[in-house]
Amino acid sequence: MNQQVFNFCAGPATLPQEVLKAVQQELRDWQNLGVSVMEVSHRSKPYEAMAAEAEQDLRDLMHIPDNYKVLFLQGGATAQFAMTAMNLLGKSGQADYIQTGIWATKAIKEGSRYGEVSIAGDCTENGFSRVPQQSELTLNPNADYLHYTTNETIGGLEFNYIPDAGDVPLVVDMSSNILSRPIDVSRFGVIYAGAQKNIGPAGLTIVIIRDDLMEQFLPFTPTVWQYKNHADNDSMLNTPPTFGWYLAGQVFKWLKRQGGIEAIAEINQRKAQKLYAAIDQSEFYSNPIDLMNRSWMNVPFVLADESLNAAFLEQAEARGLLNLKGHRSVGGMRASIYNAMPEAGVDTLIAFMAEFEQKNWQSQTIQTA
Amino acid sequence: MNQQVFNFCAGPATLPQEVLKAVQQELRDWQNLGVSVMEVSHRSKPYEAMAAEAEQDLRDLMHIPDNYKVLFLQGGATAQFAMTAMNLLGKSGQADYIQTGIWATKAIKEGSRYGEVSIAGDCTENGFSRVPQQSELTLNPNADYLHYTTNETIGGLEFNYIPDAGDVPLVVDMSSNILSRPIDVSRFGVIYAGAQKNIGPAGLTIVIIRDDLMEQFLPFTPTVWQYKNHADNDSMLNTPPTFGWYLAGQVFKWLKRQGGIEAIAEINQRKAQKLYAAIDQSEFYSNPIDLMNRSWMNVPFVLADESLNAAFLEQAEARGLLNLKGHRSVGGMRASIYNAMPEAGVDTLIAFMAEFEQKNWQSQTIQTA
Repeated sequence: MNQQVFNFCAGPATLPQEVLKAVQQELRDWQNLGVSVMEVSHRSKPYEAMAAEAEQDLRDLMHIPDNYKVLFLQGGATAQFAMTAMNLLGKSGQADYIQTGIWATKAIKEGSRYGEVSIAGDCTENGFSRVPQQSELTLNPNADYLHYTTNETIGGLEFNYIPDAGDVPLVVDMSSNILSRPIDVSRFGVIYAGAQKNIGPAGLTIVIIRDDLMEQFLPFTPTVWQYKNHADNDSMLNTPPTFGWYLAGQVFKWLKRQGGIEAIAEINQRKAQKLYAAIDQSEFYSNPIDLMNRSWMNVPFVLADESLNAAFLEQAEARGLLNLKGHRSVGGMRASIYNAMPEAGVDTLIAFMAEFEQKNWQSQTIQTA
Repeated sequence: MNQQVFNFCAGPATLPQEVLKAVQQELRDWQNLGVSVMEVSHRSKPYEAMAAEAEQDLRDLMHIPDNYKVLFLQGGATAQFAMTAMNLLGKSGQADYIQTGIWATKAIKEGSRYGEVSIAGDCTENGFSRVPQQSELTLNPNADYLHYTTNETIGGLEFNYIPDAGDVPLVVDMSSNILSRPIDVSRFGVIYAGAQKNIGPAGLTIVIIRDDLMEQFLPFTPTVWQYKNHADNDSMLNTPPTFGWYLAGQVFKWLKRQGGIEAIAEINQRKAQKLYAAIDQSEFYSNPIDLMNRSWMNVPFVLADESLNAAFLEQAEARGLLNLKGHRSVGGMRASIYNAMPEAGVDTLIAFMAEFEQKNWQSQTIQTA
């Protein structure tokens, strides 16, 4: 395909072109070894050096304190829903969860299988249009942790603050907004994220965990699911997803070259603001999320005339604007604009949206007037 | 690197050059979509079609009966050590295991955490030089399964028969010899294999499971670890390791082009036989495994003078023969000669070994005579 495309897929998501080019170039001869990075042992010196460098780059980018371990695991956030519970519910067996949407629901359901779960805050009443604020939370001081989803990929709802749960550690699913803006890691107990949005390819999961939280696992936790075992073995307890780890390392270096998280956050904010502004200025497009909780990463929107959905998607695709269809559970459209989505992609989308609206909606209004 | 190299790494292992070339070529534009296969949704039509085709190709290659599910999972064999136990110990809670070496030990240790494990056969007495034959097995007719390791990657010990355990399902770790020779899948309950030897890149795990064995999981089995949930969702319960699945599909197609497992088995047998013959004909090299249980995939050998190990490895590498160092637990050398290792690689290795022996050993013998 020769036309420039912009891929708005929610995940597995677009990767930086610069990274893909480099990966392609060295795919069959990595570090002049005559073999692919996929074909080297994870215990070989070149691989271990690359792996350690990737971890250090992530530490640099997120300013991760020394008392946190960084783990490169498998299984995705869905595995973490059980793994966090199994690893952390060994004290009181109680946990608080904040209900913010589809991903939080999955975490709550799985956590409830392993402990006594309370809902500390709930967006159900407001139709998942804003997250509960600190004053609205009902916190259990004996909870082993407070879990929440920092960004709901499907709902397009993002936390605008870090809850204060006192001494109760915060455990967060940061799959879809990790690395998108600066955060204070020291405020969290466990941060986990599937790689396939802002980190790399599917099949890699990053866990950042405070080192005092690895001893309270439930007795039946599989050996390969105990965070401690991975921490003690530098994530090489067993063969890690070596290609994903390598590619994540390339993305971390790319992000450093962009100026780090602080710099990408400015671009992310600008991208999101102009897209929401375009939606808000139009009577044809709309987004239901409260201003303070609108996601910078996933922008769902609907068309005033849903019968135009298919035409919208078809014409967008013809313009190289791919995968704008909303999640099957909510319908409409969704533009996922992660770190690797160039600002030009958002600009092109906005221009297309205006054009589509002008052609279809205003003319329709005139016709029906 | 311009010299042709042959990579004898035990895993992550060498991949077919033809596959790597094709993957490299389409890395940034898959199926003319303008994006990488890593950047498309696993729920998109092109990806789903590719995924289904990969499964069908594996079914064709292994002649997998219809009453078996094929799952594309994460976590490696190490995860399966716990996952098989958690999913299958829900009836009697008892299981038989055959002890054949390092990988069997890991499976036994993990299985013992979830049930009452008996050792049905044990190679400890013979120094792990041969597997127990049928008549030597002590089988528990009430066991939920009999587990064994079809090929010990480190020890170089391979089963030369399929045990008969009556109605007790066989559960096997086939990580290092899956697809290497024809097997009768209908004789097994569960076959699992990490991809990084004969299938594709690390981070993908294949499970082939008889469909009546998915209901007896222990109550605390994580949702994402219940085989049934993956079977019900065509391995897309959550985001699968999409790139690994794709690459495995390419390897399956390559294997079909070679004439399937039947054809590759002939080559594998020839490769192994000539390498073992070279070892046996020499007084300098030796392999301790009983003839009937010598692995076709992993050929460990030692030098009569271990002080020559470093020189052997260095000179081999200079000849493009990479990663021949034996596992740290056993020392010596190991040549892993999986499907993707060309016969020319084995020939080059044999020639180098003869040359090295001639230069170093005979001359030394003469000097000391």
